[in-house]
Amino acid sequence: MNNTKSKNTYVAIMAGGIGSRFWPASRVDRPKQFLDILGTGQSLIRSTFERFLHICPVENIFILTNEAYKEQVKEHLPELSNEQILCEPSRNNTAPCIAYVAFKLFQLNPAANFIVAPSDHIILNEIAFLGSIEKGLIFTAQNEALLTLGIQPNRPDTGYGYIKYQKINPQEDTVVFKVEEFKEKPDLPTAQTYLESGDYVWNAGIFIWKASSIIQAFKKYNPVIYDIFQSISEQLNTSEEQAVINEKYPNCPSISIDYAIMENAHNIFTIPSEFGWSDLGTWASLYAESSKDNTENVLYGENIVTIDTKDCLIRVPNEKLVVLKDLDNYIVIDEADVLLIYPKNKEQEIKALTNQIAQQKGNHFL
Amino acid sequence: MNNTKSKNTYVAIMAGGIGSRFWPASRVDRPKQFLDILGTGQSLIRSTFERFLHICPVENIFILTNEAYKEQVKEHLPELSNEQILCEPSRNNTAPCIAYVAFKLFQLNPAANFIVAPSDHIILNEIAFLGSIEKGLIFTAQNEALLTLGIQPNRPDTGYGYIKYQKINPQEDTVVFKVEEFKEKPDLPTAQTYLESGDYVWNAGIFIWKASSIIQAFKKYNPVIYDIFQSISEQLNTSEEQAVINEKYPNCPSISIDYAIMENAHNIFTIPSEFGWSDLGTWASLYAESSKDNTENVLYGENIVTIDTKDCLIRVPNEKLVVLKDLDNYIVIDEADVLLIYPKNKEQEIKALTNQIAQQKGNHFL
Repeated sequence: MNNTKSKNTYVAIMAGGIGSRFWPASRVDRPKQFLDILGTGQSLIRSTFERFLHICPVENIFILTNEAYKEQVKEHLPELSNEQILCEPSRNNTAPCIAYVAFKLFQLNPAANFIVAPSDHIILNEIAFLGSIEKGLIFTAQNEALLTLGIQPNRPDTGYGYIKYQKINPQEDTVVFKVEEFKEKPDLPTAQTYLESGDYVWNAGIFIWKASSIIQAFKKYNPVIYDIFQSISEQLNTSEEQAVINEKYPNCPSISIDYAIMENAHNIFTIPSEFGWSDLGTWASLYAESSKDNTENVLYGENIVTIDTKDCLIRVPNEKLVVLKDLDNYIVIDEADVLLIYPKNKEQEIKALTNQIAQQKGNHFL
Repeated sequence: MNNTKSKNTYVAIMAGGIGSRFWPASRVDRPKQFLDILGTGQSLIRSTFERFLHICPVENIFILTNEAYKEQVKEHLPELSNEQILCEPSRNNTAPCIAYVAFKLFQLNPAANFIVAPSDHIILNEIAFLGSIEKGLIFTAQNEALLTLGIQPNRPDTGYGYIKYQKINPQEDTVVFKVEEFKEKPDLPTAQTYLESGDYVWNAGIFIWKASSIIQAFKKYNPVIYDIFQSISEQLNTSEEQAVINEKYPNCPSISIDYAIMENAHNIFTIPSEFGWSDLGTWASLYAESSKDNTENVLYGENIVTIDTKDCLIRVPNEKLVVLKDLDNYIVIDEADVLLIYPKNKEQEIKALTNQIAQQKGNHFL
């Protein structure tokens, strides 16, 4: 990776989400990225950070988060300086967040070529992941291209957005393909068609581009956001940065990078990849990604006794004895102050459930 | 109750049990009698004790327990002196335990007339209970009788022993009936027959007799136990009591009062009673005795959210939020270190389950 571990390579890790679909493990003040969901001994953000240390020097890694989570970020990533932790004063979705880091990196280094990645996904095959990243960095360094890593689908998942790409290889010596169209989360028959066609990959929200390329895209496709950051670009990387961000950032429209840029621009490319990826969006995705016992139970906890119990996800403290009998297809999540026992195939209701809990019980348990 | 609150009336509360069928709420070192199972704010032993304060002065109440539980008894019943807490050095079932207190009371007061009662039952109708006790005390004071309170059955329960009594009233002015036979826990068809005949009551293990009467019964029907206590009767109520008990008590055969005396003696009487009694022997009996919400759930806990959940018993800490969906006929018991989720109609397996847990996990969780 000598080519890419260049001083021009940067990483922006997005760590501002609240992960409400992982309640009660995730909470407003302790979102998913700070949890060791998989029981690996590391939080998801720590795993993400260490993965990118293979790509660029530690000082080139930036975290985009909320003021509320700044201390937790420092705790999980003590190697970072304060200047590497960018705090959004408001939640305006991903486009403003990416514009912020793009303008900041461009101001630091006009040749900056950077990766944007979520902090709370899992990637099981690190070598394959780094291979795709490396190819992407080379491609975007040499082209005015906006690149999104695409995940080869292995099932007709209706929980992800899809990307249709053109199977004509634009350059003989790369694995980079031109993107034709972004597709919203499909229904099951549509997802089946996508899977069978072989022309679609999942949209993983992992992007690679030069700062200059994405800034040009903002100028063209979302001038409101462009103008806001252009107007404060002189203050970025100075002692005035946080103050101007606090003042101007909330004026940005709340819009995703997909809507703002990716669905409009014509220079979008993808690298179809397979690296054991999951966005760990829900308990069911954790179940899907985890190894099962001989009755298809996923057990996170060291003292779990299951009797006539199958297809369940059980996540409890190691020191707690949990005895379960006659449960089929449930999730059982025991946190210190909350116990959730819920049918696994209805767990998409959990986000709405947390709103209901908030109404009934206040925010205490969220 | 002026007649019966006499200086001759004593109460012996048996508090040596381990209540393993109430696991994980009850533990070896914190058995059921010390728990506030019903969430009343009082432990079962405290409720039992306060109930008997209507019957006799506090100094006439004795607790039969194990050395291991002595400190807990003192904590729950601080009114008692050390002399009122009798510690069995070994678990030899109820007959030796009752013989011990009978000889001790007889030595204190040859006219002693006393009640033997478990510490961990519930009695909802205290007035009716005290009425039965009062009638029983009058009867045993005047007769050489061994009296056991009988509970009018309201269902064909197969978890209790039954007592067949003669419906010819032996004395016109009492409600005391002669017992014909003791019956082991029956199967369901037999229990149905018992219920329909109207000739049976449940054996609640609450006895009334003069110390002299039960001592005579031991002399006749279990001379081994009689001889042991007769040989040390001079040391009872002296500073040597515990030492001789520690030496001799373990020599007693391990046998219940039912087997040792009640099934053999001919002077057994009962008062068929209705006072909202349950032995709270199992989680299902707690469910049966507790008030239900409109979907037949019994909820012990202040932050329980049930969705499409019915016929369940949920017992969790007040401060813990518990969210349950799609559970039918389960018990969910959350203790600090143990969580049990079990089909309610299989909860008679819990005693065996605790043995299995002991094998797999050691005694840590028991």
